[in-house]
Amino acid sequence: MRTSIATVCLSGTLEEKMLACAKAGFDGIEIFEQDLTVSPMSPEEVRAFAARLGLSLDLFQPFRDFEGVEEEVLLANLRRAEAKFQLMQRLGMDLILLCSNVGTATINDDQLFAAQIRRLADLAAQYGVRIAYEALAWGKYVDTYQHSWEIVKLVDRDNVGLCIDSFHILSRGDDPAQIAQIPGEKIFFVQLADAPVLSMDILSWSRHYRVFPGEGGFELDVFLGYLVRSGYSGIVSLEIFNDVFRQSNVELTAIDGLRSLIWLQARTAALLATEEVRDNLNLVSLPGVQEASGFDFAEIRTEDPELIAEMLAQLGFSFLGQHRRKPVQLWRAGDARIIVNSQRSRAVTASVSGLSIQVPDPAAGRARASALLAKPVSRHHTKDEQEISGFRAPDATEVFFGSAALTAAWEAEFGVLPGTAQPTEKGSIESIDHINLAQPWQAFDESVLFYTSVLNLEARPGTEVPSPMGLVRSQVLRTADGGVRLALNIVPQGLDATIDRHHEYPEHVALRTDDVVALARRAQAAGMEFLQVPANYYEDLVARFDIDEKSLATLKELNLLYDSDEHGVFLHFYTATVGNMFFEVLERRDGYDGYGAPNAPIRLAAQFEHNRFNRS
Amino acid sequence: MRTSIATVCLSGTLEEKMLACAKAGFDGIEIFEQDLTVSPMSPEEVRAFAARLGLSLDLFQPFRDFEGVEEEVLLANLRRAEAKFQLMQRLGMDLILLCSNVGTATINDDQLFAAQIRRLADLAAQYGVRIAYEALAWGKYVDTYQHSWEIVKLVDRDNVGLCIDSFHILSRGDDPAQIAQIPGEKIFFVQLADAPVLSMDILSWSRHYRVFPGEGGFELDVFLGYLVRSGYSGIVSLEIFNDVFRQSNVELTAIDGLRSLIWLQARTAALLATEEVRDNLNLVSLPGVQEASGFDFAEIRTEDPELIAEMLAQLGFSFLGQHRRKPVQLWRAGDARIIVNSQRSRAVTASVSGLSIQVPDPAAGRARASALLAKPVSRHHTKDEQEISGFRAPDATEVFFGSAALTAAWEAEFGVLPGTAQPTEKGSIESIDHINLAQPWQAFDESVLFYTSVLNLEARPGTEVPSPMGLVRSQVLRTADGGVRLALNIVPQGLDATIDRHHEYPEHVALRTDDVVALARRAQAAGMEFLQVPANYYEDLVARFDIDEKSLATLKELNLLYDSDEHGVFLHFYTATVGNMFFEVLERRDGYDGYGAPNAPIRLAAQFEHNRFNRS
Repeated sequence: MRTSIATVCLSGTLEEKMLACAKAGFDGIEIFEQDLTVSPMSPEEVRAFAARLGLSLDLFQPFRDFEGVEEEVLLANLRRAEAKFQLMQRLGMDLILLCSNVGTATINDDQLFAAQIRRLADLAAQYGVRIAYEALAWGKYVDTYQHSWEIVKLVDRDNVGLCIDSFHILSRGDDPAQIAQIPGEKIFFVQLADAPVLSMDILSWSRHYRVFPGEGGFELDVFLGYLVRSGYSGIVSLEIFNDVFRQSNVELTAIDGLRSLIWLQARTAALLATEEVRDNLNLVSLPGVQEASGFDFAEIRTEDPELIAEMLAQLGFSFLGQHRRKPVQLWRAGDARIIVNSQRSRAVTASVSGLSIQVPDPAAGRARASALLAKPVSRHHTKDEQEISGFRAPDATEVFFGSAALTAAWEAEFGVLPGTAQPTEKGSIESIDHINLAQPWQAFDESVLFYTSVLNLEARPGTEVPSPMGLVRSQVLRTADGGVRLALNIVPQGLDATIDRHHEYPEHVALRTDDVVALARRAQAAGMEFLQVPANYYEDLVARFDIDEKSLATLKELNLLYDSDEHGVFLHFYTATVGNMFFEVLERRDGYDGYGAPNAPIRLAAQFEHNRFNRS
Repeated sequence: MRTSIATVCLSGTLEEKMLACAKAGFDGIEIFEQDLTVSPMSPEEVRAFAARLGLSLDLFQPFRDFEGVEEEVLLANLRRAEAKFQLMQRLGMDLILLCSNVGTATINDDQLFAAQIRRLADLAAQYGVRIAYEALAWGKYVDTYQHSWEIVKLVDRDNVGLCIDSFHILSRGDDPAQIAQIPGEKIFFVQLADAPVLSMDILSWSRHYRVFPGEGGFELDVFLGYLVRSGYSGIVSLEIFNDVFRQSNVELTAIDGLRSLIWLQARTAALLATEEVRDNLNLVSLPGVQEASGFDFAEIRTEDPELIAEMLAQLGFSFLGQHRRKPVQLWRAGDARIIVNSQRSRAVTASVSGLSIQVPDPAAGRARASALLAKPVSRHHTKDEQEISGFRAPDATEVFFGSAALTAAWEAEFGVLPGTAQPTEKGSIESIDHINLAQPWQAFDESVLFYTSVLNLEARPGTEVPSPMGLVRSQVLRTADGGVRLALNIVPQGLDATIDRHHEYPEHVALRTDDVVALARRAQAAGMEFLQVPANYYEDLVARFDIDEKSLATLKELNLLYDSDEHGVFLHFYTATVGNMFFEVLERRDGYDGYGAPNAPIRLAAQFEHNRFNRS
């Protein structure tokens, strides 16, 4: 389907918005009137600029508060409308959005609404303009798509049809199924917005919290499915009022938006395929979805590889080799591979810079990522070396696709012989359990969409963790079987820069073992520095859980933290922070499926204390 | 009344929070359990530290999900409680908060609630602990203060009383009047929280959006009045869950909080005095409130006084003199005085750095500001000079109190002779209409409280203005007659620093005239640079208003903007931005009482465009 976006979604000037939309690859845009009004560009200039950029000008919007009024008001409204039709002529536009009246309507009469809109339609026809009538969720008399469709039928003019906006329908909890019964050619325009599940008044929710499809809680694939069934084959457009998007980088937001429409179409096509609806050829399809089986590797960039080497050795990792050509080391413990890269470390002591997941077909994964507008990062490889290419996530993490076969190929570049097995004693590290990535607040929604679409992960409900720096919002994205899990954390921004407290928020790699106590003892014996857990924690633990004294003494001695869920028990410890990263080691007993969230405040406070002392 | 604050309101470690509370001047604190749990300080250390700081440890909180459960769960709850009573002994604390059960209660039976709480009370008595029972607004069975009071009566133990929290009562729209009927000695603790008027689920509202008294929409003076009538004479405490406070400078937030309690007590005392309730001696009183009559002066700091001099002259200001000793100039037009100060300009081209308001008794104003913990800024004065002392607002603006007599005194230091009158032709500047101040997002709520309490201004409902940088939140604070008006704007933070777009948001001084067209013509003739208004604006104006062609031509020629309200018409223009500031000149016809808000997006977009071109 052709793609479009309302200029109001984006930051910057109208010129910047148009450039960003064209660069991202949108087919067209909606002109949000105020963006034009405040612009120094004349309508003729906008028209010519759009033509040069290859952008169609799809919808002029909004025209408000027209119908259901006394004759005197109607005449003023018609005069106001005619000025806009003239403006649209100069812009070369032929479709205007008419929102159901929310303010000035005083007469509740469908026949009157229809008669007045008919007069508007006849005036519009003189300018070659068509009208897309939209029921706002907070319209005074018309607030459902069923009602707006009744009005459009009553108007009975070729140049009057519907605008269908997912937010106005789904925010009210209305059933979108009847959309499929509307003749597709009477749907003049479709706006798709997602939104997080919030319980607040619909107007505020709409004006501030809309997000791109796939970033919220609406079932937009089902929604779009009904539109396909109606026979609609026009434009799908984004009208997203979001406080963050409006102050974020315009080019990145435009890419994020177009990615959401591509991903939504692919999901809708997949859904319709299962329902044997075949007439959806107009939907973008994507290379086949793949389920990741686990992490291939995590990559750490460091200007001090010896520091990381020491920690890895203390945790039981083995050094497998140095890359034949690059200053990059490979370490392994069980299935957990850590790449220690001292290139481009940017004078950072250490940070989690990349990750790779294992999929059945890495080439298909890469093709899919490209189709979803992921920004490639390429690494040079000589003709003897395995090509390794990946993508830069919105949070700047480098993401790669691997497979067992590929891994063997690039491991050889580190001098690893095929079939090199590691002794696996009890209490060794088995695998990478999850990776925790810090998100700038501007990038969070975009990151959620990126990782769910490009890596085919599922977003779990978010949580909030108190810390001395403020509340940390946290969301887990994972595969169904838990083989790949990412935890995204939004970093609080607040503490006044003037008081030198703006630490980078550390990221971490969590490693899984079948005996965290044994592993911790060996690490302790090897001199590893643990994050210190306060004594108060253990006193609270005893009040909350039935833990015997001996177990408690072990927890205390090894700075272990404890949690349990309906399945089982969780034990874990954290290493000291090095640069912007640290390691966690965890043991999941009896199918515990969480991440020790009740312990996260302990970690954050202890890291904050540690930083404080290290800085002063 | 004694003042307290829950540690959860503040950012930082427990140690930092306690220090900040003591420094601000609180009498005590509530220990929010998690702040202790995550702290490396032992309970004994916390106790001793509090003693050294002179802080009482008033309330240990929260104890949750106790009553209304099966016997087996109750036994676990009692075990959990006993661990906390032991902890409280080590802390030297004797009051715990018991919240009504929100999660684990399964039996809805008041007699059972009372019987179970009685068992808790008897256990608590062994440790000398008293229990304050609080009905949470989202309690499963007990969610009103009337209900919790019924339970407390049924429990019938000396060591069980109520905790009254304004949020849980007012957020539900409950009537607090019956609080006055509760015997004051059975109210063990009072928590006061304000909140902005939002329509969202109460739990989210409570956990994220609470603010200090005076910063939201609750009538807390009325609320506290009922408590005084009940005979309550204990502690008033702040329990504010606010995402911004939790990531802001801890010392400033503590001062902001204590200011709110002082101001609230003074307002309550004033309210009770009008109702002839005399037994309120325990409430803090403040020096008498004064109504400001107008602006005394606005102060501009600049490293380039010639640039400002030129603009002022173009606007019709006269240079009245140079200060006898300091590099400071006085300019005047009508009653509008502008101080141009080239000291401490910090290499900023120009910025609005201070303001002074005229009040009947400046000394009383200063005493009141001091009592409200305003941070003084003092300026050196020789023995021949008028002492001028003021206060630093949270947004760093310097605020002074003046009067006609004082003005004459300091004007003399500029060589101005008493009685120097200015010719007032039509179309001259008459006065400073309002001053627009940019607020860092961390400081906004604090600024609202500062200006309303210290300057005795009233906060008007806020609005939001779209701009290319994001939505700008704006709120007007003013005197009843409009003699002093401040507009506070929260500056969007978003645009990525990496793309060099983080402009300082400009502030401005708005000047009032009785003929903006005449003034604009003279300024144009004098070569003044106007902010350029886009042609599209005027086309939209014609569609919205009935403006004749000649008037429209004048508006266009002079870059004037137009608005109207139910009273009259508003005409205004903006100068170009110099450094971080600009001037606005406005004419209010027939009692127009707004600020041209519909034109603010035009201004912001034009300034953004201007910056863009000036930078590239």
